[in-house]
Amino acid sequence: MNEAPAFSAQFGSELRQLLAWRRDVRHFRRDALPAGALDELLSLVVLAPSVGNAQPWRFVRIVDPALREMLAAHVDAASETAAAAFDTARAAAYRALKLHGLREAPEVLAVFSDDMPVAGHGLGIATMPEMLRYSSAMAIHTLWLAARAEGIGLGWVSILDPATVRRLLDVPDSWTLIALLCIGYPDIESDTPELERRDWQAREAPHVETR
Amino acid sequence: MNEAPAFSAQFGSELRQLLAWRRDVRHFRRDALPAGALDELLSLVVLAPSVGNAQPWRFVRIVDPALREMLAAHVDAASETAAAAFDTARAAAYRALKLHGLREAPEVLAVFSDDMPVAGHGLGIATMPEMLRYSSAMAIHTLWLAARAEGIGLGWVSILDPATVRRLLDVPDSWTLIALLCIGYPDIESDTPELERRDWQAREAPHVETR
Repeated sequence: MNEAPAFSAQFGSELRQLLAWRRDVRHFRRDALPAGALDELLSLVVLAPSVGNAQPWRFVRIVDPALREMLAAHVDAASETAAAAFDTARAAAYRALKLHGLREAPEVLAVFSDDMPVAGHGLGIATMPEMLRYSSAMAIHTLWLAARAEGIGLGWVSILDPATVRRLLDVPDSWTLIALLCIGYPDIESDTPELERRDWQAREAPHVETR
Repeated sequence: MNEAPAFSAQFGSELRQLLAWRRDVRHFRRDALPAGALDELLSLVVLAPSVGNAQPWRFVRIVDPALREMLAAHVDAASETAAAAFDTARAAAYRALKLHGLREAPEVLAVFSDDMPVAGHGLGIATMPEMLRYSSAMAIHTLWLAARAEGIGLGWVSILDPATVRRLLDVPDSWTLIALLCIGYPDIESDTPELERRDWQAREAPHVETR
């Protein structure tokens, strides 16, 4: 075991900056990531918390252009279905949003969570099996922050039918889709969420109660 | 909008240290956090990603000692039930683990996720309503990292019946329990998960496939 680091106030301030400038990116430049950059980022994922140390995260890197286009077309269709459910004004605002960069981002990564991992031996999931999926979500957040520290943006696409994506990617039955991620250099940077800049939804204060 | 920060290699290295030294803490010192420390940490939570910027996280701070003891007793009972489901050798190893610091940690925080938030206007959850819960999990991860940067540890307790905890804490029907958190100064620090140190489960390499 190494000696525990003491993090400086300067680091705390930069960490706050990192949290403030992490964005859900939909506008990507098309240039590729440096060779090995994605693998290096994924090597940090194993440092994420997971219930029972089960490490249920499973990453599938999309390299086939035809498969990527099938995913993009599916998300476009799901997005149009979602638009139709809003009232007229919201639907217009929704259609004006750019919701994914699946055709531009240099990397597309699907993230699944194994519902039956051998690792962890079931610790902590007897009554809350959903802990595995929460662990995988935190792995994505780890990737998100580590990427942003390198100037690399990530966008999480959830406007899709998970069963369709599972079928397109041909993964084991025990894997649940958590996210479809676009990864690459962002076109613009901001400390304000795009949905706030576009008047969809502003930030709120923390919701805290006591008992 | 401010100017985008460029994060240094030094920051990247310290961020990696932070990820490596974040632990799921079960052994706490009993000393209180500085006044306002928890509120300050929770003010960073609003920087976490959330689907449609819905910010579904809801925090309940447990201040009543009797309520805290009821939660601890419930977790002890759930843990004994879980132990009985393991085979003899695993059950002995399981019972030797310390699984929560609900009686020692200076702060206990329950985290819920609102399944029907007004904020976000439904964006991104038509087909994946679980995105709200994943957002709340990432808020907890944000809190976890921000706390560790201040030398404060967090332990996530999931060995419990969510319905029982919801009932004890009397929260709105639309709130789903995500976590019961113990927060305080850790008794020991390590860059190796306690479950690995105690030979329960070691770390694995990232699981990456291509399509």
